Amino acid sequence: MSGGLFCWPDKLLHHRPEEGRRDVKTVHIFDTTMRDGAQQEGLNLSVQDKLHIAQHLDDLGVEFIEGGWPGAIPKDTEFFRRATTEITFQHATLVAFGATRKANAIAAEDPQVLALRDSNAPVVCLVAKSHDKHVELALRTTLDENLAMVRDTVEFLRSEGRRVFVDCEHFFNGYLDNPEYATEVVRTAAAAGAEVVVLCDTNGGMLPHQVGDIVGKVLADTGATLGIHAQDDTGCAVANSIAAVLAGATQVQGTMNGYGERTGNANLIGCVANLQLKLGIPVLPDGKLAEATRISHAVAEITNYPPDARQPYTGSSAFAHKAGLHASAIKVDPDLYQHIDPALVGNDMRLLVSEMAGRATIELRGRDLGYDMAGNPTKLARVTDRVKEMEQAGYTFEAADASFELLLAEEMEGARPSYFDVESWRVIAESTGGVAAAEATVKVRAGGERFAVIGEGNGPVNALDHALRQAIERVYPDVAQFRLTDFRVRILDQGRGTDSITRVLIETTDGKDSWVTVGVGANIIEASWEALLDALTYGLRLHRVAALPT
Amino acid sequence: MSGGLFCWPDKLLHHRPEEGRRDVKTVHIFDTTMRDGAQQEGLNLSVQDKLHIAQHLDDLGVEFIEGGWPGAIPKDTEFFRRATTEITFQHATLVAFGATRKANAIAAEDPQVLALRDSNAPVVCLVAKSHDKHVELALRTTLDENLAMVRDTVEFLRSEGRRVFVDCEHFFNGYLDNPEYATEVVRTAAAAGAEVVVLCDTNGGMLPHQVGDIVGKVLADTGATLGIHAQDDTGCAVANSIAAVLAGATQVQGTMNGYGERTGNANLIGCVANLQLKLGIPVLPDGKLAEATRISHAVAEITNYPPDARQPYTGSSAFAHKAGLHASAIKVDPDLYQHIDPALVGNDMRLLVSEMAGRATIELRGRDLGYDMAGNPTKLARVTDRVKEMEQAGYTFEAADASFELLLAEEMEGARPSYFDVESWRVIAESTGGVAAAEATVKVRAGGERFAVIGEGNGPVNALDHALRQAIERVYPDVAQFRLTDFRVRILDQGRGTDSITRVLIETTDGKDSWVTVGVGANIIEASWEALLDALTYGLRLHRVAALPT
Repeated sequence: MSGGLFCWPDKLLHHRPEEGRRDVKTVHIFDTTMRDGAQQEGLNLSVQDKLHIAQHLDDLGVEFIEGGWPGAIPKDTEFFRRATTEITFQHATLVAFGATRKANAIAAEDPQVLALRDSNAPVVCLVAKSHDKHVELALRTTLDENLAMVRDTVEFLRSEGRRVFVDCEHFFNGYLDNPEYATEVVRTAAAAGAEVVVLCDTNGGMLPHQVGDIVGKVLADTGATLGIHAQDDTGCAVANSIAAVLAGATQVQGTMNGYGERTGNANLIGCVANLQLKLGIPVLPDGKLAEATRISHAVAEITNYPPDARQPYTGSSAFAHKAGLHASAIKVDPDLYQHIDPALVGNDMRLLVSEMAGRATIELRGRDLGYDMAGNPTKLARVTDRVKEMEQAGYTFEAADASFELLLAEEMEGARPSYFDVESWRVIAESTGGVAAAEATVKVRAGGERFAVIGEGNGPVNALDHALRQAIERVYPDVAQFRLTDFRVRILDQGRGTDSITRVLIETTDGKDSWVTVGVGANIIEASWEALLDALTYGLRLHRVAALPT
Repeated sequence: MSGGLFCWPDKLLHHRPEEGRRDVKTVHIFDTTMRDGAQQEGLNLSVQDKLHIAQHLDDLGVEFIEGGWPGAIPKDTEFFRRATTEITFQHATLVAFGATRKANAIAAEDPQVLALRDSNAPVVCLVAKSHDKHVELALRTTLDENLAMVRDTVEFLRSEGRRVFVDCEHFFNGYLDNPEYATEVVRTAAAAGAEVVVLCDTNGGMLPHQVGDIVGKVLADTGATLGIHAQDDTGCAVANSIAAVLAGATQVQGTMNGYGERTGNANLIGCVANLQLKLGIPVLPDGKLAEATRISHAVAEITNYPPDARQPYTGSSAFAHKAGLHASAIKVDPDLYQHIDPALVGNDMRLLVSEMAGRATIELRGRDLGYDMAGNPTKLARVTDRVKEMEQAGYTFEAADASFELLLAEEMEGARPSYFDVESWRVIAESTGGVAAAEATVKVRAGGERFAVIGEGNGPVNALDHALRQAIERVYPDVAQFRLTDFRVRILDQGRGTDSITRVLIETTDGKDSWVTVGVGANIIEASWEALLDALTYGLRLHRVAALPT
């Protein structure tokens, strides 16, 4: 034992991925995005959404996919009907979630239990109470009857040929209040034929040392195959899952992007990457972890929750480096500044072009975009100087990749990509009798023609966007596909109120790719207009549309 | 020892808050939001922003506030000049961050070291390399010289009367590669007079069991007072911080809302709440933790990063329960479904169907403003309902104290304070030949007269502000003293681009006091206008100007 309170085996503590995998049991991954994750405030999944998510999870190589609660939620019944008939899973096994039989009833006659069987899911995950107080106050039955409900329901579903897992709800609080009873629920479920008994930190209040200790004790006392289901209320859901595995649990339940009620569930990718890359425990099929970033973002598209840039492993900032003084050392050895090679999870290292960034950063960024500036130090110095100057004036290229690429193209190709000339714009916003409206006029030349167009909108930027796209759409039909998805405003040089400089970041998508542009001005409208112009120009360039003479 | 791999003392494992505090050393909280947190992609703080954040952190009772790197970043030099002269801290001690002296140089002659002394911060936190590879590849000096740099710089600053902490950068990776050298850096710093030696997981790749083990070993080997600085790359920053404390560290470094480079730093509130509520370790002054939610959100307003609804403890969803089968049980005993009483961190339980939150907060806020609502539950309920409704529509009163006070005055005094009536406004922004300009027309009635006035400005809001103040200035000369000092825009309901709802926060000063107002609209101009009206109304009320009939 070491000097501290800890007593981890040195082999585990000092494991480095390059030393190869430890000789441990595989950990099984159980995704509950579509059941427990869907409890998240504001998250609603259609049957079609769920079918897409299931396909993505299968692509990732997840072993168990919990699809919902057939029998209780009509949409979920429909999902199982379609998933079991329409999808051929390569890796995954479908799991139906449901409750044990009602108190003082017969499992084989309980319609909700029968619905689980009839879902045709090969695995059923039953939720069972394991906290004595919940049995008495929420379930309003006796402790013995609760055990019988677990036993009967597991036995019935096993007799019907189903594999059964049991989620012990509120297990950790239950264990702290009444360890004998909580343990007895685990023992009962396992004895009745449950393949895995999952200990759930339903209220999410545990810390890793508690989870590890309790999982270890329950494992020693029951010998059951154990799983862990952690919620993130202490910010420790991933750490709690890891602690449970280190203590002997072999199934980890989590959700994509940590979706879930309150603070969410354990982020599945975080758990998987830590287990696989940090502890060398095999989890996903070979090569599948490299799909993690793509699939995490794809699921975010389906749920319509913007991906969290700071999400461990898969966030767009997770391997973004800002400090300029590190950039030269990063070139020498990226491992000095990164905890893993981002390619292992399908992510990329990004060097942020910021005022602190030096030439090394810009050279690396240029290389990513296909420009070799190493052989052209004059150009490199010029681009670096322009970036610094523009950032001093309020621009930011950290987020605005598209505007940076246009700047780079201008310097490297001799001229800025240009599809149209703006003659003038005007926008009028007014309110009379409390009703506000906006109208924009845009005059541009494109493809040899002059367009003077009016656009309306609920705000000035919206009206300008409508007018501009309408004006050039006949010449460049691609712009009809572009759609603004995010619009961020930041007032710089604060302390001068509305005399300040305004910076606008606009995110645009064509349904497939998305890009961010920046505009700066004394005026929010002026700044937005500049970002709008870049957004259309970048999009047309991305679509390889030829620029017509104006 | 228990059945698992763990060997935590039972006293700690089973600690329940109601059993009172454990007899442990206090843990010191060190906030680095303004230094390391500011490394976050896209996060930029002005000196004014930093002064506001420092004030909020002091209100929270944070013990150490790291303000930046004076001498290296001009803005930070300015921050220390102003913070040390303008703010009287109740709880906090200011910390200046900086590097050890350059290789083969003299500490007392190193301009950056002298700048740390001259910042007048009572504490200096020095960053030192402790990973042998970083010394050789990034610092490009010898291992011995690096030790001398640490020793000399600490000794010099101590001799100048400063308290010194040392951040050992890349400590954990360094320890795994070369434990003797990493430990020697700690020993050297402590022997030279560093009060705390902070072990940093700079790349953020550690897991809690590793952190706990290494902290325990270093503590046993050096006897130094240790701190922990964790990054969230494995999603374990909070758990790693807790593991370090359990192993004997007594300083925790973190940031508000977990801001920081890549995936961010340890979320300070998460660490504090876990230590205090879960482990009974005293951290903040009595009663201060209940300010956590308010201050977390106020800092988010300053950084202009939308608060994360799922953030542990302080997120708006952190104690939100989907109603249904739990609703009645929650009424019987909310403790069955919540890991803590949300009031302990200043948050509220929300039942997503029948809302019952907020009253306690509003009653307290009302009392601060001179309204006793305890004896008037009907009024309290009405104000609570209105606040909820308006927040649902996009308003926020956490930062906009002045708009909240106007709302409260309206409810408690029977009518909203009113100094003028608006007939209409219009603003035109245009650009011809690349030159942008804005002009506003405002028609109002005040003091029995009708005013139709034109205002010009470099932007639409600026033009409206000029026009409005000019219009009513003859009747209410006080408005000539009012000046907008900050203007913040947030687009809500992201994902719909410029069709989204816009929220504007405006800060106004009369040279003595300053106040924040809020406006919301489909249109940035409309939202700004509403906030402008509140700003003038609040200011006139503050000046006890009598409202004349319109």
